[in-house]
Amino acid sequence: MRSVIGSAVTVDPAVVESYRRDQSKLTSAGSPLCVVRARSIDDVRATMQWAHARRIPVVTRGAGSGLAGGANAVDGCVILSLAGLDQIIHIDVASKLATVQAGVVNADLARAAAASGLWYPPDPGSRDFSTIGGNVATNAGGSCCVKYGVTADHVARIKAVLPDGRVIHTGSRTRKNVAGLDIGSLLVGSEGTLAVIVEVTVRLRRAPGAMSTVVASFPDCASAIDAVIECAAVADPCVMEVMDRTTIRAVESMTRMGLDVESGALLLIRCDGADFAADAERCAAVCRRTAGEVWSTDDAEEGEAMMAARRMALPALERSGGVLLDDVAVPVPQLPGMMQSIDRIAERYDIRIGTFGHAGDGNLHPTIMFDETDPSQVSRAGQAFEAIVERAVELGGTIAGEHGVGVLKRAHLRLMIGDAELDLQSRIRQAFDPYKILNPGKG
Amino acid sequence: MRSVIGSAVTVDPAVVESYRRDQSKLTSAGSPLCVVRARSIDDVRATMQWAHARRIPVVTRGAGSGLAGGANAVDGCVILSLAGLDQIIHIDVASKLATVQAGVVNADLARAAAASGLWYPPDPGSRDFSTIGGNVATNAGGSCCVKYGVTADHVARIKAVLPDGRVIHTGSRTRKNVAGLDIGSLLVGSEGTLAVIVEVTVRLRRAPGAMSTVVASFPDCASAIDAVIECAAVADPCVMEVMDRTTIRAVESMTRMGLDVESGALLLIRCDGADFAADAERCAAVCRRTAGEVWSTDDAEEGEAMMAARRMALPALERSGGVLLDDVAVPVPQLPGMMQSIDRIAERYDIRIGTFGHAGDGNLHPTIMFDETDPSQVSRAGQAFEAIVERAVELGGTIAGEHGVGVLKRAHLRLMIGDAELDLQSRIRQAFDPYKILNPGKG
Ligand SMILES: Cc1cc2nc3c(=O)[nH]c(=O)nc-3n(C[C@H](O)[C@H](O)[C@H](O)COP(=O)(O)OP(=O)(O)OC[C@H]3O[C@@H](n4cnc5c(N)ncnc54)[C@H](O)[C@@H]3O)c2cc1C
Ligand SMILES: Cc1cc2nc3c(=O)[nH]c(=O)nc-3n(C[C@H](O)[C@H](O)[C@H](O)COP(=O)(O)OP(=O)(O)OC[C@H]3O[C@@H](n4cnc5c(N)ncnc54)[C@H](O)[C@@H]3O)c2cc1C
Repeated sequence: MRSVIGSAVTVDPAVVESYRRDQSKLTSAGSPLCVVRARSIDDVRATMQWAHARRIPVVTRGAGSGLAGGANAVDGCVILSLAGLDQIIHIDVASKLATVQAGVVNADLARAAAASGLWYPPDPGSRDFSTIGGNVATNAGGSCCVKYGVTADHVARIKAVLPDGRVIHTGSRTRKNVAGLDIGSLLVGSEGTLAVIVEVTVRLRRAPGAMSTVVASFPDCASAIDAVIECAAVADPCVMEVMDRTTIRAVESMTRMGLDVESGALLLIRCDGADFAADAERCAAVCRRTAGEVWSTDDAEEGEAMMAARRMALPALERSGGVLLDDVAVPVPQLPGMMQSIDRIAERYDIRIGTFGHAGDGNLHPTIMFDETDPSQVSRAGQAFEAIVERAVELGGTIAGEHGVGVLKRAHLRLMIGDAELDLQSRIRQAFDPYKILNPGKG
Repeated sequence: MRSVIGSAVTVDPAVVESYRRDQSKLTSAGSPLCVVRARSIDDVRATMQWAHARRIPVVTRGAGSGLAGGANAVDGCVILSLAGLDQIIHIDVASKLATVQAGVVNADLARAAAASGLWYPPDPGSRDFSTIGGNVATNAGGSCCVKYGVTADHVARIKAVLPDGRVIHTGSRTRKNVAGLDIGSLLVGSEGTLAVIVEVTVRLRRAPGAMSTVVASFPDCASAIDAVIECAAVADPCVMEVMDRTTIRAVESMTRMGLDVESGALLLIRCDGADFAADAERCAAVCRRTAGEVWSTDDAEEGEAMMAARRMALPALERSGGVLLDDVAVPVPQLPGMMQSIDRIAERYDIRIGTFGHAGDGNLHPTIMFDETDPSQVSRAGQAFEAIVERAVELGGTIAGEHGVGVLKRAHLRLMIGDAELDLQSRIRQAFDPYKILNPGKG
C-alpha cells in the first residue's frame, strides 16, 4: 500500500489507536489495519482502488466527533481520514456559495463565510472541531435548524469518490436542478456507506442581523412545549431550546448563573430577522402566560450569556460520571409525552436522565448518567436507552434526529424501517458498493 | 388484467388516446396497451404486481401537465393514472403537516391548508391542475421558490409502491431524521422511474401576511439582473421574475396593460414577511438606479394585477403559433450572459425566442416560437433548443431547472452527467426496478 499512497499511510500503533473510535459511548470498535491520512483527492482514490481490489473494508473519518460509532473501526479496515483535506477552495459571494474540501472544520467555513459578509447556518454543538464532510455524511443539525434547516438544506454539490476509485459529482450550483436522480441527497446522511465525500459546495445566506433572546422557566415540560407551539404560531424564532429540571440543576450547580432550580423546564428562544424585537416580544408574551420567570434581552452579549446555559448542558451532566447521550425526535406536539416517558423510564430503571434539546423541531437529547465501573448501572443505562428509542417511535418520531445510526442504533432501525425499505436500502448500497467495503455493519 | 383490477382498466381507444401524452411539444409517445385509473392503493399494487409478473412497462401519470414527455406512453405500456387518488387525508395544524393522496391537485391542497390558516408554498404555474404526485415526481418549482424552496423542500414522508407491488414509507413526520438512507429525497424528481408515489405528507408554513409588489422596466437584461443580485443582498424577496423584450411585447399586445414596450427587460419583485414594506422599498430603490420606470404597491389587488403580466407570458407567446418551452437554470450572476446567448441563438437560427423566468434562482424559460407546419422552422426550433441547453451547461448551469428530463432532454443528460454518474443512476434504478418496467427510456 505504501508504494501507492506513500507516507500518508501509518501503522504506528499509537496513531492507529487514536483513530479507532469516535466520541460515542458503549459502542464496539474493531482493530484497523492502518490509517491513511489523505492529503489529496488522489490519495483517496488510490486508497479506494487499493482496498477495492483486495475487498478490504474502509472506514471514512472526519474529526471523529460522531456520537453513534459511525467512524469506529471494523476489524482489518483502513481508516481513511479526510481531516487533512482542509482547504477552503472558493467563496462565491454573488452566488452565495462556498466550495470546501471535506476536511474543513465547520467553524472555519463559518468564519470564512462571515469574512465575506455571508453566513453558513448549520451549527452543530461540535462546530469547532467537526468537519463538513462529517456534517454532510451525518446530515448534522444544530440549534438554528428550526428556522434555517439542517445540513441537507445547505448542500448544493458534492464531489465524491466511489468505492472503485471513480470520482462523481452530484447536484448543481443552481438552486433548482432536476437533471437526473438526486444522488447528492442520498449521500447526505449516508454515514460513509456509499462513497467518500471529498469536496462540498454549500449554500450560504446573508449574514444574520441583530437578535433578541428570551429565557423562560416553566412549572413543567408540558407548559414549556405548549409555549413552543404557540411561539411558532405567532413568530419565526431561529432558536427554541429546552432543558428539563435535571439539566437545569446540573447547569446551575456547575455555573452558579442563577437559574431557577425549582422550575420544571427552561426555554431558550431567539428571534432574528427584520422583526426580531417584536417577534421576541410576542414570544415573551406567550411565555408569560404560564412561565414563572421570563427574561429577555436585545443585547448580543447578554443573549450569548443566556445561550451559554444551553451549551453547558452536556458538560454539566457529564460531571456526574459516564453519560450515554441519546438523540430522538418526535413531532413537536408529542414532546410533553416524550419527556414524561423519559422521566418514567428513569424511574423504572432507577437511573438519572437529564434531557435537553432542540424543542422547535422535536429533537431531544436524553442524557443517561451512570457509573461506567458498575456493570448493573451500565446494563440499566443500556435498557433505558432502548426504552427511550422505542418510545420515540411509538409517538410517531424517529430513532435518530441528528446523530446518525452508526453502530449504536443499527438494531433499532427495524423499529422504524420495514423489510421492504431495509431491502431497498441494502440494494442501493450495493449499487454504490458491490463488494460492501464501505463502513460495513454501519448505518 | 380485468380479473385483478376490474373496472379501473380501460382499453377504449378514445380514452387511451387521451392519456397518451403530456403537454410537451415535439416529444415522441408510444401506444399504450391500456389505461388503469386507480381508485385505491390496492389498485396500484395490483397493477404493479400484474405488470411486474409479465415485465410490462408502466407509465405513471398524474394530471399529464408535464412539459418533458415524462408521462408520455411507451409502446405496449400500462398508463397508470393516479388522478383518482384525490383524497386529502389529514391536515395536522400543530405539526404543520398535510397528508394527501398523490392525485390531489396542488391548488386543492393549498386551499385546504389555507382553510386551516396554513400555507403550502410550492406554486407551479400549473397548480390549478397538476397533482402533488406529479409535483413530487418532477420536483416542481414555481415563483416563490426563491425564498421558500422547491417541492423537495416541503416533502416530509412518501408512501410509494415498488415495481413488485410492495409498499414502502420514506422519511418522517419530524423535521429532523437521520435513520437510514434518505430514500424519499431520491423519489423526489425521479419522474416515475423508481416507484409509484401514492401518498405524500408535506410540510406547511404559517400563512403569509401582506406583500408589496415592485415592477421595474430596465434598458437591458444585464441591468435587470444586476438589480436582482442587489435586491437579494439588501432584502429577502419571495418573488423575483424577469421578462425579456419579446415577452413584454407579446404580453402587452395581448393585454394592453400598459407595459413599456421599449424597455429591454421587466422585473417583478414581491416582498413578504414582517418587514415587507421596507424590504420592497429597498428593492425599489435598487431598481431606481438603472430602471426606466419603477411602480410599486402595497395593495393586494394591484399587486395581483401586476403579477398577471408574468402569468400571461406563456399564453401571450403562444398566440404566435407553436411554442417549444425550454427550462434551464444558471447561477444568477450568469443570467445576463445566458439571456444574451439566447438572443444570439435566435438570430443564428432565424427564429423568435421570448424569455421569461424565475430570475431569483436563475431559472429561465426560453420559449421558441415556430410554425408547426413548416418543417424548416420545426428543425430550426429544435436546433435552437439544443443550443440553449448546451449554453446553460457551459455557464455552469443545468439542462433542467424544474420541468424534468422526461424524453425531451434524455440525450442532454450526458452534457451534465458523466459516465460514472450515469452508471450509478442506472444501478440505482435497477435497485428499485430490476426488470426496468417503470417509465423505461425516460429521465
Ligand atoms: C460535544 C459534541 C457536540 C455535538 N453536537 C452536535 C449537534 O449539535 N448536532 C449534530 O448533528 N451532531 C452533533 N455532534 C455529533 C458530531 O459532531 C456530528 O455527527 C458531526 O457531523 C460529525 O463530524 P465528524 O467530522 O466528526 O465526523 P466523524 O465522526 O469522523 O464521522 C461521522 C460519520 O460520517 C462518516 N464520514 C465522515 N467524513 C466523511 C466523508 N468525508 N465522506 C464520507 N463519510 C464521512 C463517517 O464514516 C461516520 O460514519 C456533537 C458531537 C460532540 C462530541
Ligand atoms: C401551463 C403550465 C405551467 C407550468 N408551470 C410549471 C411551473 O411553474 N413549475 C414547474 O415545475 N412545472 C410547471 N409545469 C410543468 C408540470 O405542470 C409539472 O411538471 C407538474 O409537476 C406535473 O404534474 P402532473 O400531475 O401533471 O404530472 P404528469 O405530467 O402526469 O407526470 C410528470 C412526471 O411525473 C411522473 N409521475 C406523475 N405522478 C406520479 C406518481 N404519483 N408517482 C410517480 N411518478 C409520477 C410521471 O411518470 C412523469 O414522469 C407547467 C405546466 C403547464 C402545462
